[in-house]
Amino acid sequence: MKANRIYNFNPGPAALPASVLEEIQHSFLNYGGSGMSITEISHRSSWFDDIINDAVARTKRLLNIGDNYRVLFVQGGASLQFCMVPMNFLSAGQSADYVDTGTWSTKAIKEAQILGKMVNVVASSEDKNYAYIPEGIDFSSDAAYVHITSNNTIKGTQWQKFPDTAGVPLVADMSSDIMSRPFDVTPFGLIYAGAQKNIGPAGVCMVIVREDLLNSVPDDLPSMLKYTTYSSKNSMYNTPPCFAVYTVQLVLKWLEETIGGLEKMESLNREKATRLYDFMDSGGFYRPTAEKDSRSMMNVTFRLVNEDLEKRFVEEALENDLSGLKGHRSVGGCRASIYNPTPLEAVDTLIDFMKSFKSKNG
Amino acid sequence: MKANRIYNFNPGPAALPASVLEEIQHSFLNYGGSGMSITEISHRSSWFDDIINDAVARTKRLLNIGDNYRVLFVQGGASLQFCMVPMNFLSAGQSADYVDTGTWSTKAIKEAQILGKMVNVVASSEDKNYAYIPEGIDFSSDAAYVHITSNNTIKGTQWQKFPDTAGVPLVADMSSDIMSRPFDVTPFGLIYAGAQKNIGPAGVCMVIVREDLLNSVPDDLPSMLKYTTYSSKNSMYNTPPCFAVYTVQLVLKWLEETIGGLEKMESLNREKATRLYDFMDSGGFYRPTAEKDSRSMMNVTFRLVNEDLEKRFVEEALENDLSGLKGHRSVGGCRASIYNPTPLEAVDTLIDFMKSFKSKNG
Repeated sequence: MKANRIYNFNPGPAALPASVLEEIQHSFLNYGGSGMSITEISHRSSWFDDIINDAVARTKRLLNIGDNYRVLFVQGGASLQFCMVPMNFLSAGQSADYVDTGTWSTKAIKEAQILGKMVNVVASSEDKNYAYIPEGIDFSSDAAYVHITSNNTIKGTQWQKFPDTAGVPLVADMSSDIMSRPFDVTPFGLIYAGAQKNIGPAGVCMVIVREDLLNSVPDDLPSMLKYTTYSSKNSMYNTPPCFAVYTVQLVLKWLEETIGGLEKMESLNREKATRLYDFMDSGGFYRPTAEKDSRSMMNVTFRLVNEDLEKRFVEEALENDLSGLKGHRSVGGCRASIYNPTPLEAVDTLIDFMKSFKSKNG
Repeated sequence: MKANRIYNFNPGPAALPASVLEEIQHSFLNYGGSGMSITEISHRSSWFDDIINDAVARTKRLLNIGDNYRVLFVQGGASLQFCMVPMNFLSAGQSADYVDTGTWSTKAIKEAQILGKMVNVVASSEDKNYAYIPEGIDFSSDAAYVHITSNNTIKGTQWQKFPDTAGVPLVADMSSDIMSRPFDVTPFGLIYAGAQKNIGPAGVCMVIVREDLLNSVPDDLPSMLKYTTYSSKNSMYNTPPCFAVYTVQLVLKWLEETIGGLEKMESLNREKATRLYDFMDSGGFYRPTAEKDSRSMMNVTFRLVNEDLEKRFVEEALENDLSGLKGHRSVGGCRASIYNPTPLEAVDTLIDFMKSFKSKNG
């Protein structure tokens, strides 16, 4: 039982900014003078309209998105997007290019194939257990889209630079690095991101879609699986996940007003990751698993000399109020997830602990 | 701007028990001694396992459900269930019976038809603007299932007794009256309920499914649209909507431990509805819209003599801290939604206001 808040390195759901949590707590019984909790107000009220419109406006400002994109909020996480993307944008006779960088890309490919869609896996890093991001990929010029996963939470890899697809729209699962750095949105046809890592709690997925692509959405899809249902109703065809959207709005406000935008966020994220990787590179005791030029700023994956020591590392860290450092069950090892809300101080505290653990066990 | 909490008659998202909101607020920065917010803990942690398992166990106890049923938590609301039910349970060559009691049933029918499924609308109350629940229905003996909407939030109607389908599994959308009264679950193959009316906040849909039906789920559905994906992973194939599930768990705990179960809940709900209908029946000024033997205990819909007066009624009620009394935009009029969490005191306060409004305008 912890009496105080701890340092949270969870891969998702993950840490949220303390000021956001405090604001939610403070107004939880009476949101904005409504006399109701945020969980009790109607999604058809002006209170909720203001929330969702502000979340959309902040997203557009933060990412510098033009008016030809729509920002939607969808339930079902990135996993539902794995099937919605091909259902909406891959008609019979068309094919799409997918880059397989492990786990989440692999699932996205599988879901498109379940639907009987034509998928070309144009590059994969499976040969080295997904420890790198492929380069120099030969994309199909007639693909409906090119699908990538911008950051792999499990393998600890991240695209440093998005690939040139020569005009074919990029579709990206950015669940684990959305809003962690500025980037040029214009090559993207669609971006989706489960909120529970960088921008909010579990229960809502942000979708950013280029408007002209919406014209090709087939009519014969179920309403809840068509992007046009969400775009035509400002994500409120049915009751949206109000609390999750509200929390996302507050995190975006924190990104704009407290952090000061995505350039500042990137520089802070880079500083956190650099301190951690530099410390590990200098010692040899902790071995990062991703290749240097593919390392994630968000999920720092590493191994110790054996599994017993890794287990002790995770346990002793928790005793020292450093939580969530176990690697994903599919790969083992250790992982520090250092998304936007993780403060520099948490990383420094982690490095201090790692030094101490190494001196006792090195 | 309201300094205090008001009486909330919203149709959904709707009022939650004050004690539940206070508990969420109290532990919002440090859930269960984890040192993290409920929004920050991992869904793979023992904290969340305990939450979801407790929510399932309480659901089974409250509804007296046998071990041959599974309780699942799915995103996308009842609206996603409109397509998931036929995708999972209606194969080519099979047909299903649907009863059309307005709005939500109509949408459920439409979504099955979009999928190209064979749907028999075996009864409808459209002839009287859905003001009643059809009786003496002739069901098809070879239907895969019979779909009903147990309570219509917009028309203010509710099935008083579920129909005898002679062994064909009932499938019910119980979004607006789940856990409001005890009932025999055994004729039901599947029950679904968006949480945001009787049992929680927006962002999660409870699904109760009979295990043997899961055997007929086709293999070639996308993972997130197959009930078996949820049943095989305790609703955690991907990240569930943790905060919404947690709030549902607290509401179910309140139902069991504070209210004392569904018989007591029904008697309280019946008392609330009876007071409101009896008052309106005695005066003539407020005219309930549903036929007497089909009236909903949850959504009390009524008209005043003209729309101007209805508008003034809703506005003056709000000035008196009585919120959410406007009828649905598709039908107009007035509506008091009095779900489980609405206390008797709220109904009495509403009746007092209605008396006073009538004496000034009658």
